[in-house]
Amino acid sequence: MIKAGIMGATGYAGGELARLLLQRDDVEITWYGSKSYVDQKYASVFKNMVQFVDDACMDDNMEALAEQADVIFTATPQGFCASLMNEAVLSKAKVIDLSADYRIKDVAVYEKWYNIEHKTPEYIQEAVYGLPEINREKIKGARLIANPGCYPTCSFLSVYPLVKEGLIDPNTVIIDAKSGTSGAGRGAKVDNLYCEVNESIKAYGVGVHRHTPEIEEQLSLAAGKPVTISFTPHLVPMNRGILVTAYGTLLKSVTYEEVKAIYDKYYENEYFVRVLSRDEAPQTKWVEGSNFVDVNFKIDPRTNRVVMMGAMDNLVKGAAGQAIQNMNIMFGLPENQGLKLVPMFP
Amino acid sequence: MIKAGIMGATGYAGGELARLLLQRDDVEITWYGSKSYVDQKYASVFKNMVQFVDDACMDDNMEALAEQADVIFTATPQGFCASLMNEAVLSKAKVIDLSADYRIKDVAVYEKWYNIEHKTPEYIQEAVYGLPEINREKIKGARLIANPGCYPTCSFLSVYPLVKEGLIDPNTVIIDAKSGTSGAGRGAKVDNLYCEVNESIKAYGVGVHRHTPEIEEQLSLAAGKPVTISFTPHLVPMNRGILVTAYGTLLKSVTYEEVKAIYDKYYENEYFVRVLSRDEAPQTKWVEGSNFVDVNFKIDPRTNRVVMMGAMDNLVKGAAGQAIQNMNIMFGLPENQGLKLVPMFP
Amino acid sequence: MIKAGIMGATGYAGGELARLLLQRDDVEITWYGSKSYVDQKYASVFKNMVQFVDDACMDDNMEALAEQADVIFTATPQGFCASLMNEAVLSKAKVIDLSADYRIKDVAVYEKWYNIEHKTPEYIQEAVYGLPEINREKIKGARLIANPGCYPTCSFLSVYPLVKEGLIDPNTVIIDAKSGTSGAGRGAKVDNLYCEVNESIKAYGVGVHRHTPEIEEQLSLAAGKPVTISFTPHLVPMNRGILVTAYGTLLKSVTYEEVKAIYDKYYENEYFVRVLSRDEAPQTKWVEGSNFVDVNFKIDPRTNRVVMMGAMDNLVKGAAGQAIQNMNIMFGLPENQGLKLVPMFP
Amino acid sequence: MIKAGIMGATGYAGGELARLLLQRDDVEITWYGSKSYVDQKYASVFKNMVQFVDDACMDDNMEALAEQADVIFTATPQGFCASLMNEAVLSKAKVIDLSADYRIKDVAVYEKWYNIEHKTPEYIQEAVYGLPEINREKIKGARLIANPGCYPTCSFLSVYPLVKEGLIDPNTVIIDAKSGTSGAGRGAKVDNLYCEVNESIKAYGVGVHRHTPEIEEQLSLAAGKPVTISFTPHLVPMNRGILVTAYGTLLKSVTYEEVKAIYDKYYENEYFVRVLSRDEAPQTKWVEGSNFVDVNFKIDPRTNRVVMMGAMDNLVKGAAGQAIQNMNIMFGLPENQGLKLVPMFP
Repeated sequence: MIKAGIMGATGYAGGELARLLLQRDDVEITWYGSKSYVDQKYASVFKNMVQFVDDACMDDNMEALAEQADVIFTATPQGFCASLMNEAVLSKAKVIDLSADYRIKDVAVYEKWYNIEHKTPEYIQEAVYGLPEINREKIKGARLIANPGCYPTCSFLSVYPLVKEGLIDPNTVIIDAKSGTSGAGRGAKVDNLYCEVNESIKAYGVGVHRHTPEIEEQLSLAAGKPVTISFTPHLVPMNRGILVTAYGTLLKSVTYEEVKAIYDKYYENEYFVRVLSRDEAPQTKWVEGSNFVDVNFKIDPRTNRVVMMGAMDNLVKGAAGQAIQNMNIMFGLPENQGLKLVPMFP
Repeated sequence: MIKAGIMGATGYAGGELARLLLQRDDVEITWYGSKSYVDQKYASVFKNMVQFVDDACMDDNMEALAEQADVIFTATPQGFCASLMNEAVLSKAKVIDLSADYRIKDVAVYEKWYNIEHKTPEYIQEAVYGLPEINREKIKGARLIANPGCYPTCSFLSVYPLVKEGLIDPNTVIIDAKSGTSGAGRGAKVDNLYCEVNESIKAYGVGVHRHTPEIEEQLSLAAGKPVTISFTPHLVPMNRGILVTAYGTLLKSVTYEEVKAIYDKYYENEYFVRVLSRDEAPQTKWVEGSNFVDVNFKIDPRTNRVVMMGAMDNLVKGAAGQAIQNMNIMFGLPENQGLKLVPMFP
Repeated sequence: MIKAGIMGATGYAGGELARLLLQRDDVEITWYGSKSYVDQKYASVFKNMVQFVDDACMDDNMEALAEQADVIFTATPQGFCASLMNEAVLSKAKVIDLSADYRIKDVAVYEKWYNIEHKTPEYIQEAVYGLPEINREKIKGARLIANPGCYPTCSFLSVYPLVKEGLIDPNTVIIDAKSGTSGAGRGAKVDNLYCEVNESIKAYGVGVHRHTPEIEEQLSLAAGKPVTISFTPHLVPMNRGILVTAYGTLLKSVTYEEVKAIYDKYYENEYFVRVLSRDEAPQTKWVEGSNFVDVNFKIDPRTNRVVMMGAMDNLVKGAAGQAIQNMNIMFGLPENQGLKLVPMFP
Repeated sequence: MIKAGIMGATGYAGGELARLLLQRDDVEITWYGSKSYVDQKYASVFKNMVQFVDDACMDDNMEALAEQADVIFTATPQGFCASLMNEAVLSKAKVIDLSADYRIKDVAVYEKWYNIEHKTPEYIQEAVYGLPEINREKIKGARLIANPGCYPTCSFLSVYPLVKEGLIDPNTVIIDAKSGTSGAGRGAKVDNLYCEVNESIKAYGVGVHRHTPEIEEQLSLAAGKPVTISFTPHLVPMNRGILVTAYGTLLKSVTYEEVKAIYDKYYENEYFVRVLSRDEAPQTKWVEGSNFVDVNFKIDPRTNRVVMMGAMDNLVKGAAGQAIQNMNIMFGLPENQGLKLVPMFP
């Protein structure tokens, strides 16, 4: 039995962690941490949990939690996990951080894009970027996982094979991403009210979104050279889901079969990445509630570009599901344990 | 390993049966029946199933299916199951019919409300109305289950305790029900297009909806006398969920505690019925994707009425989940096997 | 040119007042009042208004506003209008109050249901309940209008003819109402976030909603005796629209034609009330953006009840549109001036 | 009084034409044409029109219609208008074709992308591409208008100033567009059912969408040389609205003020194009129900690209509203007559 603690359990990603872990027999949640709801019943904050959880919310004492948990998930605001990290915690429990605190290796880049001082930069190098499809081996032995961002996960997995194989010029990559509203969090803001979001779509953070350097760092590693991309996120009137439509200029003429073979090379043994059939565009609804990323591509000979697409549930593969996938790897369990979820449709 | 066949597998209820059964290790789906999609890959009709199902759709040969299955689910249009029922089928496989064919004991009532001739009325008496919360013992030994309708399940479970205990006059019961659009099926009709349903709500089938006699029959059994009710369904712009708001006149003055005790008496040992805390109104999102029915009530001393409320996922407890609950009982399995699903939120 | 001032211009009802008045040539808006956004550009709060309004928001100085306006609309929280009302204001400008402050004649009932002290009860008797379909003559000469609530407008107009004509027992009336989310206002609350409202429906304020005594007062006047009703509002995932489904017990046997004749008697000369064709259920989308109320009914001989239905845009006929209808009457203009709006579909 | 006839009046664009024209005093609709609903009451097909229209639908006899109308709008499937065009029609009435039949000057390009034979190519050269912001003078004297497509209108107006001024390399232009579901029409298809569209987003027609050559032709005219672009449309769960996010590589270093000045140069005298304030991203809800296009841009010095954005109501500026704008110009009326519509929010 793995004992798991969740910091930030009353946000949407925290709630998804609880939802997924509560359905397992081999994990026990020992700590529902929440700054805003201390001492309130967790099932009164997320009423879907009635009958599953009788516990009240705990405060944010990470050291106390480390005593009671084998693994700690931090689904907390930027800077929070870094501010509490120390050897006492890491010596007692594995930490999977769903915030951005340890994702970017260059602390100056982190501090510039997030406009925040990093309190424990000494752990950045140790932290493993928890994208199992590329870092599986490193994850196995890690103490501290930087769980990837939602947009970076979907963006990277959509374009990675063609960048890695040198099929496209990585500096021509433009990523136009669309996200459901749960990505905006559960804070009470006018901009996220039902009537403000419903029946509308808009871009936001154009040219300045914080997930940009994270995507660039991973693509640079794949390309073996510095990569700069355009990244534009959009807010879509739906609860869950991220769709990525990415564009890249081809460096040589290719056939459908050649490109398909490259995607298959990287993903045919990956349980959570489904390469769709020819001309089948990924759709967020087909992955909702699951840990899958559906990817596909379309060669456009007229423009010499390839359109790369990916669809994913932002709260699962984009947050809680990927965190649990990492936990499974760290604890030597089958990677898809508790995650063989058939997407919910409709 | 239970071998299961699904007739009508390409409708929404059929797809939900597949989704729920595919996540079990003790059930194997041997037949995806579909009149409209014969020989097409099932996962091309429901693309959430990619990687889970490689089978193509089969035709509607129920006898052939009975040879290959221990249990047959018929998620088919009214009249279809009745037209294929015979001793050869029932001697080989248990049948759980999700249509209305065997729900109503008086065939004349069925034929009048459904405007259809019943082809095998000789099986109506044998069929057990598959609402485990009241018919558990009969379900255990049944060969043929009439799986309850979505509205009747939510309506009945919301008002049953107070009718059974004689607390309200059953002939004053008014049920105002609201359903998500998956209840309207997957047929291509202008009325169910996105733009016609979105941003709108309407009543339909006012005074003539086919689920009325089914609710009345079950309430009559509970009351021990004939009951006539008002039932009005509404179409709501959401995929899943049924909410019932029911009104009844109290036959005596009662306190919150007294009514709460009655609900608890009937439901505290029922895994799938959650009686909410005082003043907590059931909400469809809190049960989405699960087999739960959340119920609650409010006494209104000004009008001497009680408002009874219930929320449920129409495709799970209102269709596929309840059918599987019945299957579990019929096969001697724990009733909640494969159904301990935490509702998905948001 | 009528000079109009709006207090509470940055709420949804205030914004709708601006939207409707800006499209008229005979009205000029002189004051966009807003406690929260003083000195900010109005078009930065409601960006649909870009190019139409260059003004900044003003504070809540009603006396100063009265100097600059012929009519003042107060789309403000309960108690606000009452706290600023005085002879100086009323002697200079007509006031149309969209809050509940002057709707209920018995101040004790108001104070009990709204849990607030009324600061100027001396104006309650003078105030005219601004439902033109029943109070047109009184509105003509009024200085102070109590603009009806959204639920009361739709509820009352749906059941009024049958109560007035004594066709139903008014104390059997049960009103099950459903509203879009703009009715919940533009305040930043977790409960009204997109992800909390979307894909869900729930009842709220069961048995205690503040619009109950307002409906009862008007129905009592129509019936000529005290009336007590059940009223249950629901929150629906859509921006706009109210649907009312009301139930009443018939006092005598009636035909469709007889009931239709009664509805026609009251409404055939009413521009804003459309009695639909037989068996056509009102639908909120068919009235969106307009000042119409669509009503219809269904006799249910099985239960001896009649189901009365009404659909309306809560921000138009339920708030801003009705307020402008009242303004038109008060200023001697054609009642539908600026309000001959074709509903927007889809 | 202008007499107007609508062919294809029962589609969404046809309904929007009726909605907008019915609110004018200077236009009379003489013909509601509809192949599918001949002889049925128009207000029974679009129930928002009850009380506004008493007419029944007519057949598709364009010559008979030309006798009764000053202007004919054809909101009909591709090929329909071309198949009925002749001198008899054009000599009697002006024709504004909302289909693609006369948009593309090279008939071979039209026939290839639309996979249809053009029946009257002899009128292609005469037809004027009805985008008033660039072709106002030619529209004045035209007999036949090719009303632009929805995506082309929003795409072109978003990128036009920077292409025209040579600020960006037109062959680097990538247009990622997102549309509400009314763009898919009112035909009964499973793919457009509420439950299939809701809570999902997907790309479609990747690399092969028919609006691509239309955008390219207009951009080529603006650039003065052949232009090839990438264009990807997406289906978004909302009724109305198109959002365009376009990317282009800058040919020189520019400041915000320089680019803003270019947009202002082209649009400050255009009533229907609103250039938003710095860093304000266009949002479809802010233009809903109106004929506005909101545009803006963001320079990204990191990538040397500019992101150009536009938002528009696909049924108004993208179809019916633009057609009426063209009609106003052709009949010598103020261009915004009947179109000074404040967008509806929320």
